[in-house]
Amino acid sequence: MTIAIGVLGVGRIGEMHAELIAQRIEGARLAGVFDLNGEAAKGVAAKFNCRQFSDPEELMSSSDVDAIAICTSTDTHVDMLVKASKFEKPVFCEKPISLSLSETDRGLKAISDSKTPLMIGFNRRFDPSHRSVRDSVADGSIGDVHIARITSRDPAPPPVEYAKVSGGIFVDMTIHDFDMARYVVGSEIVSVYATGAVRVVPALAEIGDLDTVALMLQHANGAITMVDNSRQAVYGYDQRVEVFGSKGLVGSDNPLMTSTVSRNAQGTQLAKMPYFFLDRYIPSYIAEWNEFIAVASGKIAPAVTGADGRASLVAGLAAWKSVREGRLVKTSEIN
Amino acid sequence: MTIAIGVLGVGRIGEMHAELIAQRIEGARLAGVFDLNGEAAKGVAAKFNCRQFSDPEELMSSSDVDAIAICTSTDTHVDMLVKASKFEKPVFCEKPISLSLSETDRGLKAISDSKTPLMIGFNRRFDPSHRSVRDSVADGSIGDVHIARITSRDPAPPPVEYAKVSGGIFVDMTIHDFDMARYVVGSEIVSVYATGAVRVVPALAEIGDLDTVALMLQHANGAITMVDNSRQAVYGYDQRVEVFGSKGLVGSDNPLMTSTVSRNAQGTQLAKMPYFFLDRYIPSYIAEWNEFIAVASGKIAPAVTGADGRASLVAGLAAWKSVREGRLVKTSEIN
Amino acid sequence: MTIAIGVLGVGRIGEMHAELIAQRIEGARLAGVFDLNGEAAKGVAAKFNCRQFSDPEELMSSSDVDAIAICTSTDTHVDMLVKASKFEKPVFCEKPISLSLSETDRGLKAISDSKTPLMIGFNRRFDPSHRSVRDSVADGSIGDVHIARITSRDPAPPPVEYAKVSGGIFVDMTIHDFDMARYVVGSEIVSVYATGAVRVVPALAEIGDLDTVALMLQHANGAITMVDNSRQAVYGYDQRVEVFGSKGLVGSDNPLMTSTVSRNAQGTQLAKMPYFFLDRYIPSYIAEWNEFIAVASGKIAPAVTGADGRASLVAGLAAWKSVREGRLVKTSEIN
Amino acid sequence: MTIAIGVLGVGRIGEMHAELIAQRIEGARLAGVFDLNGEAAKGVAAKFNCRQFSDPEELMSSSDVDAIAICTSTDTHVDMLVKASKFEKPVFCEKPISLSLSETDRGLKAISDSKTPLMIGFNRRFDPSHRSVRDSVADGSIGDVHIARITSRDPAPPPVEYAKVSGGIFVDMTIHDFDMARYVVGSEIVSVYATGAVRVVPALAEIGDLDTVALMLQHANGAITMVDNSRQAVYGYDQRVEVFGSKGLVGSDNPLMTSTVSRNAQGTQLAKMPYFFLDRYIPSYIAEWNEFIAVASGKIAPAVTGADGRASLVAGLAAWKSVREGRLVKTSEIN
Repeated sequence: MTIAIGVLGVGRIGEMHAELIAQRIEGARLAGVFDLNGEAAKGVAAKFNCRQFSDPEELMSSSDVDAIAICTSTDTHVDMLVKASKFEKPVFCEKPISLSLSETDRGLKAISDSKTPLMIGFNRRFDPSHRSVRDSVADGSIGDVHIARITSRDPAPPPVEYAKVSGGIFVDMTIHDFDMARYVVGSEIVSVYATGAVRVVPALAEIGDLDTVALMLQHANGAITMVDNSRQAVYGYDQRVEVFGSKGLVGSDNPLMTSTVSRNAQGTQLAKMPYFFLDRYIPSYIAEWNEFIAVASGKIAPAVTGADGRASLVAGLAAWKSVREGRLVKTSEIN
Repeated sequence: MTIAIGVLGVGRIGEMHAELIAQRIEGARLAGVFDLNGEAAKGVAAKFNCRQFSDPEELMSSSDVDAIAICTSTDTHVDMLVKASKFEKPVFCEKPISLSLSETDRGLKAISDSKTPLMIGFNRRFDPSHRSVRDSVADGSIGDVHIARITSRDPAPPPVEYAKVSGGIFVDMTIHDFDMARYVVGSEIVSVYATGAVRVVPALAEIGDLDTVALMLQHANGAITMVDNSRQAVYGYDQRVEVFGSKGLVGSDNPLMTSTVSRNAQGTQLAKMPYFFLDRYIPSYIAEWNEFIAVASGKIAPAVTGADGRASLVAGLAAWKSVREGRLVKTSEIN
Repeated sequence: MTIAIGVLGVGRIGEMHAELIAQRIEGARLAGVFDLNGEAAKGVAAKFNCRQFSDPEELMSSSDVDAIAICTSTDTHVDMLVKASKFEKPVFCEKPISLSLSETDRGLKAISDSKTPLMIGFNRRFDPSHRSVRDSVADGSIGDVHIARITSRDPAPPPVEYAKVSGGIFVDMTIHDFDMARYVVGSEIVSVYATGAVRVVPALAEIGDLDTVALMLQHANGAITMVDNSRQAVYGYDQRVEVFGSKGLVGSDNPLMTSTVSRNAQGTQLAKMPYFFLDRYIPSYIAEWNEFIAVASGKIAPAVTGADGRASLVAGLAAWKSVREGRLVKTSEIN
Repeated sequence: MTIAIGVLGVGRIGEMHAELIAQRIEGARLAGVFDLNGEAAKGVAAKFNCRQFSDPEELMSSSDVDAIAICTSTDTHVDMLVKASKFEKPVFCEKPISLSLSETDRGLKAISDSKTPLMIGFNRRFDPSHRSVRDSVADGSIGDVHIARITSRDPAPPPVEYAKVSGGIFVDMTIHDFDMARYVVGSEIVSVYATGAVRVVPALAEIGDLDTVALMLQHANGAITMVDNSRQAVYGYDQRVEVFGSKGLVGSDNPLMTSTVSRNAQGTQLAKMPYFFLDRYIPSYIAEWNEFIAVASGKIAPAVTGADGRASLVAGLAAWKSVREGRLVKTSEIN
């Protein structure tokens, strides 16, 4: 059986998903696309030889669409979820579900009430290296978890215009790390202490955002996770996760672009790191879609749920509260 | 402009090429396929939504085919080259061109006489790590080349039935290393000293083949290349190239499947190596096809020529002669 | 010129220093030793063929002693410093100077008033890898410092009896990391946020100590340092420092005991890490003594001063206050 | 019990041994030294506070000397061995025993007839990384040995004057690798195929020596060892050993001088390699002396025997014969 997927929104990430679905995913087919920008949708439809839908509900309701992928801008996710919940079709939704917790809850309620299978796009969970870290924790290889460390740095900052509507660094960027912390440690975040600064893009200060942050998370199981983010690592896309426990340590180091080694009188030189997520995480997106196909085929329940999307948003909001109030904030304070 | 490629032969390697052309190569299109095994061709044609041709010349002559990929069994390559040379279309041919030098010359003459652009499928040249080694040599970074080392080991031996018709290890397996030696050192092989043993598959002894070999190659520029091969490395597909010169060293080490690191009281554990060529060399095949598209578009001359294919076969035949006669053999002795 | 050094206190660390001075330090000589435990002193004196002094002042005042090394228990350091300040001889003192800030100040005043050259034993500054990190920051190679990360974990916890008189983990263990943070970042610590837990040795809870801690330090130059410590890393002595800035990253990774690599069907295995400081830091102690010899010879001023010792104690006391009050504590609050 | 060692010859290597014996070897004492160059001997005796002997036999016969270390120039080793064989004292002798096989045999006969315990100074056997390779082979971890690879390159060539009396590269430099091959593979060398060139020091051509060589060794157990040497690796002292077998691979990679890692827009930089043997092999010399002390104490038999010294010389002579005659040479041809 092939699952025909309709993709809503073909901006940068949506087009990437459309391409993967069209070409790289066994058991999947790109049924069609929709985008408010009709020209963009037209181009993608032509490129991958699929239908262009004229509005989201036409796509959602089409008998040629088995499953729905929501890749539109964040502020439209909840409306899309509510609409999608009417069609009894499995739904994939990009992160974050919303910048608002009440809106998130509205969307999740519609999904839940309709028993719609929903999977949230935390792609890093599907990266083979990070997944291997989680597996080693989950199978007991490292014993009780004491300390986790997550470093996640982008190669270059996004435009300030984007930052303005992104929910700020904790909701836009750190959200991946909150999810990663919950994923690898295997325990909920109960409190957040966050700090940060503007070191890279001065204009961020004017809109109350940060570009360099550090966080300390307490988990329900007693583990502590330390996270740091920067919007600008000139050496590339720095993505490391490490978990330390009573029996040892497991971590995912940065892969390099090639396995070339040079030696001369100056020392030893290795290759560059991946520059950004397209250089690093394509295998994770492919694994994500393979998982979604299994979900849409009814074989498994979604591994990344609406509750996961919500929990990371809560942590992000707690981080902002922590920075603003200069104190540790419990996630139970956010609602 | 999109180049429409017809693929002759859809066995393991041909089907892989068909899939890459159909899905992964910008500017390429899979026009159709042919295989003596009609069922196999039918399946591939259906899977990638392309035409199934009923004989090679129908494919070669089709107005819907811009370029021809020869992926049939080695013993048919020369006939295919001769046929293809009539159609003024760019040709890709898998290695080795033939097990016979005179046959190779017959095929290459037809290609040459017809001025058909021909590219031979030495995919490892397109591996980013190996390529980076070659580039560092070519740009003078390591100075004059003194010593190269190539290790190339398969994870498991092929069936003895395959070995029987393969030309033996030096023509079937080491041929990649002869090409790699010429590629990274940037100089012709002038002599071969080879030795070997049967250590893995006793039945190979009966057919005069080897599974564990070591070679010493002299290049025209004075460099020495040491090569070793094994048909069975239980830890995976070991593929290393290293060049040492007057200004330093550059090498391509084995990549690992993930960047996971574990530490416990026993030591430090890293991930597995790629198991075989599909795990390691897909990026090289994609780069190979990108190169061929540029060739077929008339933008560049083929970087891997018929002469390259011939030179590696000569080295392979020299290696067999060296083993049989227990002495160093000059490549000029082979003709 | 050879500097004759008298060593006060030949417990574990004092004996190690005595041995290094006697055997490994160019330009140094072990003049003699003193220890309250006369048998211990006698053994060391016999082993390294030096004099055994009967009390500290006899050693300090001896015309055969050019410089004084204070390696006695922490609670005696200040009295030793005050005594030593009378003899116009260069002094080396182990860290921490004292568990009490007022006592520290009393000792440092005597040293300062007498213009005694004093060097504090923060050996990690002399580790070639950590030093190289500092050098890359200091020479501008990584630009402005944004984030530093320090992981420092012991292989096994000390006896609870020791912990009781140690000042607790922040003063006994993290003190090295406070110094390292100041050293590599090149800027004072202005605030400390600390948290921690008892995960390894339950008995520590009864004495109000911790064995697993995480800290966030703010520096005067805007950098943030994240530190984590554990009293028990079963895989060995984990000692990593990393600095991230506007132009790149530099870090000191853990060395391994050998450069052996194994590969089999299970993956790739590397060697063990150093088990504890004697396996990792001997080269740092040797470099430390070389530095002290240069200080004692009047060639250079001490690179690790009393003020450095004081600053790390202040940070340690701030960390305890942070944990007790559950808030960020400015180092200016400690006095 | 402390073993008092007298050192004959305090050139570069002899002085290093004297220093290690005086300062770093538990259970050893430097009894005294002798050197034809009396000033050199005087300096060393003063530095390490030991006796200067006026001739070799005075040292050998002294009741204050328990064991004899022969570190004089190679051409005197055999005479020293013959003399030493009269004193019933354990003997350490640097490699090679002699450049002449008959002379070697004369020396070894005296040693053997007198039942003198003799240990030859193949220090690399005691390097923890190489030793770990050997151990993994010896304990069966990698199964049957199929292929070994040894790379051994010096950072800079010795003076031509030295080369003239050294026996040439195969006897002076490769001799370590012949011993290493026998050590890690655990089987005798039965044949040698060698080739080489002058690429670094043109003057070597005039004296019939080489500076860049490659060798293929056949072992009695069917394993093949590939060796390459260069007199000049600008990046440092390249010392790698690797053994591949039916169950996997084990190798000793080059250690680096520090564990520092830098990342910037150009890529990843690691530290330099050790520059030469004093930077790399001090731990091996210490382990070597610890072993000799155990031998001299009668606790163990020598692990590196006269027969080991002889076998490597035979291989070196076979290599020269192979180069001169352009053919594979059996070690049984050398006598």
